[in-house]
Order: sequence, then C-alpha cells, then structure tokens
Amino acid sequence: MTNALQQLKAHQKKVIRLSEISAILDWDQLTYMPTGAAADRADQQTTIQMLIHDLSVNPEVGHLLDACAAAVSSQQADSDDVALVRVSKRDYDLATKVPSNLIEELVGHSSMAYEVWVQARKQSDFSLFSPVLRKTVELNKRLADCLGYVEHPYDALVNQHEPGMTAAKLRQLFAELRPALVSLVADIGEAPQVNSEFLHGHFPIERQQELTINAVRTLGYDTNRGRQDKTVHPFCTSFSHNDVRITTRYDEQMIGGALYASLHEAGHAMYEQGLPAHLKLTALCRAASSGVHESQSRLWENMVGRGREFCSYFLPTLQHYFPEAFSKVTAEELYRAVNRVEPSLIRVEADEVTYNLHIILRFELEVAMLEGKLDVDDLPDAWDAALHEMLGITPPTDTEGCLQDVHWSSGFGGFPAYTLGNLIAAQLWHTIQRDIPDLSACIATGNCTPLLAWLRDKVHSQGARLDPMDLVEHATGEALNSTYLINYLNGKYRDIYGL
Amino acid sequence: MTNALQQLKAHQKKVIRLSEISAILDWDQLTYMPTGAAADRADQQTTIQMLIHDLSVNPEVGHLLDACAAAVSSQQADSDDVALVRVSKRDYDLATKVPSNLIEELVGHSSMAYEVWVQARKQSDFSLFSPVLRKTVELNKRLADCLGYVEHPYDALVNQHEPGMTAAKLRQLFAELRPALVSLVADIGEAPQVNSEFLHGHFPIERQQELTINAVRTLGYDTNRGRQDKTVHPFCTSFSHNDVRITTRYDEQMIGGALYASLHEAGHAMYEQGLPAHLKLTALCRAASSGVHESQSRLWENMVGRGREFCSYFLPTLQHYFPEAFSKVTAEELYRAVNRVEPSLIRVEADEVTYNLHIILRFELEVAMLEGKLDVDDLPDAWDAALHEMLGITPPTDTEGCLQDVHWSSGFGGFPAYTLGNLIAAQLWHTIQRDIPDLSACIATGNCTPLLAWLRDKVHSQGARLDPMDLVEHATGEALNSTYLINYLNGKYRDIYGL
Repeated sequence: MTNALQQLKAHQKKVIRLSEISAILDWDQLTYMPTGAAADRADQQTTIQMLIHDLSVNPEVGHLLDACAAAVSSQQADSDDVALVRVSKRDYDLATKVPSNLIEELVGHSSMAYEVWVQARKQSDFSLFSPVLRKTVELNKRLADCLGYVEHPYDALVNQHEPGMTAAKLRQLFAELRPALVSLVADIGEAPQVNSEFLHGHFPIERQQELTINAVRTLGYDTNRGRQDKTVHPFCTSFSHNDVRITTRYDEQMIGGALYASLHEAGHAMYEQGLPAHLKLTALCRAASSGVHESQSRLWENMVGRGREFCSYFLPTLQHYFPEAFSKVTAEELYRAVNRVEPSLIRVEADEVTYNLHIILRFELEVAMLEGKLDVDDLPDAWDAALHEMLGITPPTDTEGCLQDVHWSSGFGGFPAYTLGNLIAAQLWHTIQRDIPDLSACIATGNCTPLLAWLRDKVHSQGARLDPMDLVEHATGEALNSTYLINYLNGKYRDIYGL
Repeated sequence: MTNALQQLKAHQKKVIRLSEISAILDWDQLTYMPTGAAADRADQQTTIQMLIHDLSVNPEVGHLLDACAAAVSSQQADSDDVALVRVSKRDYDLATKVPSNLIEELVGHSSMAYEVWVQARKQSDFSLFSPVLRKTVELNKRLADCLGYVEHPYDALVNQHEPGMTAAKLRQLFAELRPALVSLVADIGEAPQVNSEFLHGHFPIERQQELTINAVRTLGYDTNRGRQDKTVHPFCTSFSHNDVRITTRYDEQMIGGALYASLHEAGHAMYEQGLPAHLKLTALCRAASSGVHESQSRLWENMVGRGREFCSYFLPTLQHYFPEAFSKVTAEELYRAVNRVEPSLIRVEADEVTYNLHIILRFELEVAMLEGKLDVDDLPDAWDAALHEMLGITPPTDTEGCLQDVHWSSGFGGFPAYTLGNLIAAQLWHTIQRDIPDLSACIATGNCTPLLAWLRDKVHSQGARLDPMDLVEHATGEALNSTYLINYLNGKYRDIYGL
C-alpha cells in the first residue's frame, strides 16, 4: 500500500519537474529571448504542456489515488500523507472533470480573444471585444458546470484559484469593505494632498538595479537561490525552491515603480523559497492559493515597504544611490510620499486604499454577467457608473475603463485573489505585531529576520497542506474577516492625511 | 507507406523539440542561473534527457525506419527523403547499439573522472588521474566494439562526430600537415616577432560588448534570431534556427580574446541560422558534423576576421570604441598583431599555425593508448617529448601538459574535428576566392553578404543531407586534402614574417 504513495510521488516528481522546465521557458521568453523565436518557443511550450497534460489526466493516476486513499485511511487527519492524497485528488478532479474538447475550445478562444482585446483596447472600441466577451461568459458557464458547484457557478471558477472560496463569502467580505473604503477615499479627497514630487526626476537604471537588489536582500530574498531581471511586466517565477526569480521594470523618470515592484515580487519569491523542503516535488510543496500568495507580496510591499520604519531605515540607502533627489528629504516625508492616495482609472497603478475598490468593481461585474443580470453590451456603462460611485471619476474612453485588463479574454474568478491577498495580509500583520513585540524596532534597523521567521513558520512551511481559509485561521486564530484591513487602512491613512 | 515517413517526422519533431528545451536549460545554467540551483537543474536535465532517450531507443522507431526504407526505395538517391531515412537509421543504430549498462557506466565514469581531473590538474599530479584515464581507455575500447568498425577501433569513436571518417584518413592528412607546420613554426621562430602590445591595455567590458555585437552583425549574424551573453567559456547553442545564441568572455586588460571568440561563435551561429528551413525539425536540419561546424567558426574567425581586408575595414570601429589604444595603429599593424605566432603550451590559447600541432599531438597519443602501444603511465613523458619535437618547448608541469584538457575524462575521438575544421575551412576558402572574384573588395568595405550567401548555398542549406566528406567534395570539387591549409598558412605567415 505504501507502494501506491511512492508511485504517486514518483508521478508528481516528473510532472513538477516538467512544470519547472515550462516555467524556465516562460522566464526566458519574457527576459532574454530574441523576437524571432516566438513561434518556435510557443511550439516548445506546447510540447512540454502536452506531456504534462497527458501525465496529469492518465486514468492510472485515478486508480493510484484510490489505492493511496485506502493506504492513508488509518493515518492522522493532519498528517502530510493524508493532505497529499486530498490535494492530489482535487488536482486530478480539476484536470479530468473538464472534457478535452471544452479545454481546447477555451484555449483556442483565449488566444483569439487576446488578439481581439489588444485591438479593441488600442482602438478603444468595445464593440470589437463585446462578442468575444459574450463567448467568454458562455464558456465560463460551461466550465463551471463541468467543474461542479453547490450554490453558485462562480464558486466553481474561483475555486480553481482559491480552494474552498465561494461567491457568498466574497460578497460578505466585500460588502463590509466597500463602504469603509469609499468613505476613507472621500475623506482623503477633502484633505490636503501629500507631496511626492521628489520621487520624480532622473534615476539612472543601473543605480536603480543596485538599489532594488539591496532592498530585496534586506527583506530576506536569497539571491543565491534567485536573481532579478528586467521585464515589461514584473513577475515572480519558481523553478524549484532553490531557483526563484523575480523581475521588475524601470522608469528613468521615477523611482517608486521599480522599488515597490521589486519588494512586491520579493514577497512572492520568499514564499516560494520558504516552501517545505521535506515535501519537495509533491503537490503539497506549493502555495496554498493565489490569495495567500498575494498576501505575501502585499505584506512585504505595503505593510513593510510602505511602513514608517522601513522608510526610515531605507532613506540613507536612497540618499546613497540618489543624493541629489533625497539629500533633503526626511523619513516622514518619504513615508508620506510613498503612501499618496489618489482616485485613478488604472488598477495596476492604484494605491493601497483605492486598489481594492477596483477589484470589488470587477468582481461585481463578472458575477452579474455570469448570472445574466448584466448584458455584455451594457458593461461599459455599468463599469463607468460603478467607478463613479466608488471613486468619483469616469474613464474618458473604454481603454481606461472596462478594456484595461487582459483577464476577461480568458476566464472569470481570478480577480478576487488580489483583495483576498490584502485582507489576509492585514490579518496576518495584526497577529505578527502581537507575536513580535519589537517588530517596529527590528524593521527600523533593517532587521527583517524575525518577521521572515514568523512567516516561514506560519505560512511558507505549510505549503498547500491547509486550504487557504484554514491556513489563515490556523495562523491568526480566527476566520478571515474584513476588520483588520479596514482598521489597518483607516489607522494608517487617517494619520497620514490628518483626518 | 508515406504514412511511415509522416510518423517518423512526427517522432523526430518531438525529440528535437525536447533537445531544444534541454539546450535552453543548459544555456540558462551557463549564463544566469543562481549558484544554489545546480542540483535541481541537473535533475531537470535528467528528466528531459530520459524522455529523449526513451523516445530515441524505442523499438517502434526501428520498425518505422524499416517501413520508411521500403517507402523511399523508388526515390532518387539524392532526394531529401532518402537522406532522411539514411541519417535517421544511423542515429537509431548509434543510440541502440550500445547496451544501456555500458552507457550508464560511461556516464558514471565521466562524471567521476571529471572531478578527479579537476583535482589532478589543480595539484598537477598525473598519478591521481592515471587510473581514471586507464578506465577511459578501457571503456572506449568497449564502446568501439559495440559501435562496430572495419579497420580500427578509433574509426568507431571518431564516427560519432564525423560520419565516414577513419583513423587511416586522419593519419594521412596529419602526416602531410605535420612536417609543413613544424617547418613553418621553426622558420617563424627565427624571424623578428610582430608587435601586438596595443592589444593589451584597459578595455571597459561595456564597450567590448558593443564592439563585439557590432562585429558579429557585420559578418551577418542575425541578432533578431539570436543574442550574445557572457560566460566563462564561449559557446554557441541553438534552440531552433530562429534562436541561435552565442556567448563570449571579456578580459578588461585585453581586447583580442572577446573579439575573436565572438567572431568564432558567430561563425558557428550563422551555420545554425542557415540550416534548411524546409527540413526543419527533422534529422537533416542540423550540421553535417563537428568538423564542418568548426570549419564555419574558423573560416569567419581566421580567414575573414584575421584577414587583411577585415582588419582594414574594422580598424575605424576599434578606434571609435577605444581611441586611446588604436588611434595611432595602422591597418597593417593591426593585421600583423592579431596574427602573431608563438609556440605555447595551452591549446585553447594557441595561434592559427601552432593550433593544429596541438591537435595532431592529442590524436597520435589517444590512438596509441587505444592500440595499447602507449601505456597510460607513460603519457606525460610521451606528451612532453612530442610537444618538444613539434614546438621546441616543454611544459613545466603536467597542468600545462597532458592534464590541460577535460576531453579524456569522457571519450576519445573528439579532438580531430578541430583540425578537420581548419582543413575544410581552407579548402572552402580557396574555392570561395575563385567563385567570388571581388571577395577582398567586399570584405574591405564590410560587405560579407556574398560570402555568407555562398556558404548558405554550399554548406548551411545542405544540413546533414550529405556526409561531411561528400559535402566538402560537393562544395569544392575535390576530396578533402591538406594542400589548401598548408598553402594558406605558408602564404599568409611567410608574408607576415618576411620569410
């Protein structure tokens, strides 16, 4: 019977190694690949992806999982083996529940829809994208039916990213969050704006590279098991917990973008570097969910990197690399500048407060489209109305409105992870401050070791043993709720803006 | 019956895509991979290599090849399909003739022997390496027996790199070459040495990067389908003819190393970029042999890059990037400096004339060991004696003598390709000068297009359709012989040294 578990692990090792290899091809494509290689790279990826798919849906894995379930039935419910069989079964179900013709249709649609989206966005012409989006809605309904759900088709879709999450739970969390944020944004709008002019100027790329590497090493990102490169869109990718790479983007006229992109990606990367080594190359040696992953990036980017203590610690480093821009700036001025709040149209450029409203807006609209309560053709008006209600601003064109994100070219259910990440980060942060009384003093001297150790223990080393909501409850002592994010944002920003 | 050919091509496409992926992993490892990732990368490589091996030795491929042979039996002997079946059959035989336990023994020995070689070389202690080398000899004898040969076991080994080549043919070529080179080197030793001091100084890496990219683009290396990075040992690697990358190494105190390493690797790369697109992803879409590959790198590096015309054309570029070093240098001085000949101990640092003697020495010694005429323990003495006879110098220690190269940690039969490359390059060069009357004038204005077009037509676009010796005869009108290299070197160097 143990034999079945060993066979399962051997199978997973092979699939995971192939997935790592696929990630290496992706990284190369986004960093150094010459332009002429695009078509061949796509085919190389297809070769690997087909191998992974064939292995993943092999019916023998199903039989193996049945044998494993029997083999671990006498073990403790919280043992690694029991968790491994549970998570592996869910992976297998997700991989096999959807018939291959629907998968092909989804892949084909997604790549076609992407091209249409690029054109529609370029020309700011929603009528181009509308029929494609209608098809996205239809395919996602069919996908949800295949995956299965109890209450709401959205549950099936969000479950792909967040095991155990439901539309009802999201609605409840967002219903609490939304009015608190709208009110905070409105109050900030009445207050005098903070000065962030000194973040703009001339910042040579090479010095930004050195500065950002210095910053991510301070947090605890291990560059012997990682590296940072330049890309158009920053990301983190892992080829094993010994090779977790990040990328950032540089703007010679602005220093904040690269710095906080690096801190964000380093947060993701430290999670990957801290995954449980003893479960390496199994289905448990990965993040609990997209939302938990995002909690790590946001905690390091915002709670730490945009915190008063880190600003105070890091200012001399900024002054060393860019003496002209920062020699006369105080730590408090830096802190206020990197926390400037301003209603804006584009999600990826939004600040810590308004960001979640962008997500809630998308969640509400995609659920409404899925339920048939919002017709696809009415999306632009619904978008503009909701944005105006939340932030008091209106996009001049759909390019800055409902055409700004690529996500709806392929699937629904991915957006909530961003705000779940912020909710989880705030709840973890509250607990961490209780558990590490001298946290502020540590960060103020550039010592992030106690914080990283806490996250290693409570989050990283858990891998995917626990479902995300169980992980949060296990780490913080209570179920995920909106109190901590609301309190954190109100506390921080009412102080900064003197409200 | 056509169906068998289609199946063969589908099979090769998969194997070749996996080999390309393996090459991407290698490139990343040698350029950007963080140090901590070494063990995981080795395992990722093993995963891919095992997939490739399992596909390559699958007995179904043998049956398929039989069916293909029948299917093409009525086609012209020089058709692509006939060549494809012939080359694929040879690949399959090479992959299946050696039993898997011998392969394992070879792989295991090679990795152990490499570590021993590193230590022996570091300590300059041949007695450490001697037992390992004895085993290398024994394993290579067994390998030759498995691969099969008519006259000499060395034939089987060299055939892995040079289809159709034999020890007898090499002996004949080298017997003509050796006395001519020894005599030329001796005469040069009597003549006043050329001045190459200005190639040494201070050359910032960043400017060297720009200079070398400028140089390889001038030759015709397409950087939309390639790129250049920095490594310890320069190499060229291909992930499809649309993604052929080169690397070089920089020495801040010396400009010649990076420049000529780049030209050399670009020569390899242009061959790969010019392989026949209509045979893409088949066994014919690759170089004819290691020797033919080397002919391309040496032709661009030496006949072009170290030629009078290129030196004259490229001097203003050198002056632009390094005005201090080159402002007072004439084209003729540059030409003489980059062609300085001097007997030296280390093969990889040898000039165009002495280089081939280093190869002939290794060929003679490995054949003698294989035949049992030279005992492994007597290698250092035999090495020193032969080197003294050829170049009049003696290594102070075995580190600069018989321990300098890694090759004998694994196999025999690889060295001759280097000198075959020079022989082929010289014979091609002779024909090219006849076929392109204004070649000198073109190169003197930086126009390498006619030369590249000739090589594309006669060499690159042939892929592996012809065996290397047939390719040479086809391109030059006569069988490979030593006349052209001897004439080229005598003509060029007796002029430079006023002999």
